[in-house]
Amino acid sequence: MQIIDGKAIFTQIKTEIAEEVKTIMAAGGKAPHLAAILVGHDGASETYVDGKVRTCKELGFKSTLIRYEDDVTEVELLRCIDGLNMDTDVDGFIVQLPLPKHINEHKIIEAIDYRKDADGFHPVNIGRMLIGLPCFLPATPAGIMELISRCRIETQGKHCVVLGRSNIVGKPVAALLMQKAYPGDCTVTVCHSRTGNLKEICLDADIIIAALGVPEFLKGDMVKDGAVVIDVGLTRLPDSGAKSGYKLTGDVKFDEVAPKCSYITPVPGGVGLMTRIALMKNTLLAARKAIYQ
Amino acid sequence: MQIIDGKAIFTQIKTEIAEEVKTIMAAGGKAPHLAAILVGHDGASETYVDGKVRTCKELGFKSTLIRYEDDVTEVELLRCIDGLNMDTDVDGFIVQLPLPKHINEHKIIEAIDYRKDADGFHPVNIGRMLIGLPCFLPATPAGIMELISRCRIETQGKHCVVLGRSNIVGKPVAALLMQKAYPGDCTVTVCHSRTGNLKEICLDADIIIAALGVPEFLKGDMVKDGAVVIDVGLTRLPDSGAKSGYKLTGDVKFDEVAPKCSYITPVPGGVGLMTRIALMKNTLLAARKAIYQ
Repeated sequence: MQIIDGKAIFTQIKTEIAEEVKTIMAAGGKAPHLAAILVGHDGASETYVDGKVRTCKELGFKSTLIRYEDDVTEVELLRCIDGLNMDTDVDGFIVQLPLPKHINEHKIIEAIDYRKDADGFHPVNIGRMLIGLPCFLPATPAGIMELISRCRIETQGKHCVVLGRSNIVGKPVAALLMQKAYPGDCTVTVCHSRTGNLKEICLDADIIIAALGVPEFLKGDMVKDGAVVIDVGLTRLPDSGAKSGYKLTGDVKFDEVAPKCSYITPVPGGVGLMTRIALMKNTLLAARKAIYQ
Repeated sequence: MQIIDGKAIFTQIKTEIAEEVKTIMAAGGKAPHLAAILVGHDGASETYVDGKVRTCKELGFKSTLIRYEDDVTEVELLRCIDGLNMDTDVDGFIVQLPLPKHINEHKIIEAIDYRKDADGFHPVNIGRMLIGLPCFLPATPAGIMELISRCRIETQGKHCVVLGRSNIVGKPVAALLMQKAYPGDCTVTVCHSRTGNLKEICLDADIIIAALGVPEFLKGDMVKDGAVVIDVGLTRLPDSGAKSGYKLTGDVKFDEVAPKCSYITPVPGGVGLMTRIALMKNTLLAARKAIYQ
C-alpha cells in the first residue's frame, strides 16, 4: 500500500512551473498573471484563495485579488468580469465559488472569456473536454489526472468508479477517464445518490474516485484488495481540539480502506493541493497562449 | 417483450411539431428554417439528408440544401457557414458528417453559431449539456431520451450500460442519463474497445445503449432478462437481394436478444428516425428562440 504524497508531487510541479516562468522572464516575457474574485468571507473560500495567492507568489506569477462583500450585485460582478476579460495583462482568472444565492453562478461563469477561464468551468472548455479537444480542464479533475499519471498508475481497461456527479468533479473526471488517452481508457461507472447497489459496484472497482462530499462514506468493506482510491472529499467537521476549530475530513474512512489499497490519497495532502496546482497550470497555459490564441 | 415502434413515435412527434408550426404561422410568424450543407456524394449521407429535407416539408418547415463537391476547401465551407450564421431567415443548420479528410471537422463545427447549432455538436451546447443547462442536445442522444420517455421506461436508479464512447452518441448519451432528471438518474457505465469484462457488465445492465457501430455485436447471452435494449447501430452490409444493394444492420443480434428484453428498438425503424425528429425539434426551439436569444 502506498499513500500518495500529494504534497511531494505538488512541490515537484511547483518547481517545474517556477523554472518555466524563469525561462519566460529571461526571454523578456511577462509573468503569468492570475486574478481571483472573492465574494464574502466564507472560511473555506478564504483559505482556498489565500493558498492560491501564496502559490502564485512562490511560482513567480503575478496575482490580483478582488474582493466584494456578500451584497454585491450580479451587475457589479459582471462588470468586474468584463474588465478582467479586457485587461490584456490578466492571463487567467477565477471567481471563487460558491457565490451568494442572489447571484446566478452559471451566468457569472459564462461571462468569463473562455480563453481566460483558469478554473475550466466555462461551457466551451467543458464541451471541448468531453469531445477530447485541447482546453482548460476543470482544476480538480485535472489534478486527479496529474496524480494518477505522476504515480504511473495503470488505467487502460481498468474499471473506474466515480462516486458523485457534480459539475466540478464527478462528471468531468468521468469524462476524462473514458477518453482514449493516458490517463484514461477506463471503463467508467458514475454512481450517485440514486444508485442502488453501490457497495457491489465499488467492490468491482480498480479505481475509485470518491467525490460525494459525505465524510467517511467509503468504508473498508466496499473496496477490493489492490484498488486505487482517490479521495476528493474536503468536509470541515467541528473539532474543538484543533486550533482552527475544525478537522478536514475526506469521503473515505481512511483507516479501514487504506490497508486494502495499492494507492490511496490522504486528506489533507492529496487532491486539494493538486487542484491548486492545476489552476496554476491553466494560468501558465493561458499566458503562453498554448490552447487558444 | 415490446418492440419499440420508432416509426409510430416519429409520426406522433411529427404531428405535434406540425401543429405547433401551424400555430406559429397562424399568429403571423415565419416557418422554421433548417439549412443543411452536404459535401460529396456518400450514399448514407445522401440518404440522411434526403430524409431530413423530406421531414422538413412534412412539418411545414422551410429547408435549404447547399451542396459542395468533395474537393471543396475548408475556407469555402467556413465562408458558407459564416453566411448561414448571418442569415436571419435561417433558424438552424447542420453540416452533414463525415467530411472529407482534408477538412477539419472540429473547426467546421466550432464555426457554427451555437445558437443555430441544430445538430447540438458545438462545444457550447455539449458543455451546457454536461452541466445540465438548457441547450441544443445532440440529435441521436436526444432521440434516445425521447424514445425512453415516450415509452415511459423507468430510469431512476437503473444501471445503464453505454457501449461506445463516440462524441456524437456514447459520451453525450452517458452524460444525459446520469443527470438528475427524467429520463436520467441512472447509474451509468461507459464501455468501449478497451473494456475487458464487457459481457459481465452487460449482464448487469437494466438498460443497454449499443452504439459501437459493430454489426450484431450484442448477443443473446450478454443480456439479462427484462433489460431495455436501444440499438444505435446503423451499418450498411452488402445484400445482393436488396434493391438498394445493402441491408441496414444494428449493433444487436436482434433474434437472440429480443426475446429476453422488456423493450427493444428495431433497426431500421428505431433510433434512426428519432435522430431525425430530434434535429427538427432543435430547429423549432431555435426558431422560437426557446434556448438562446
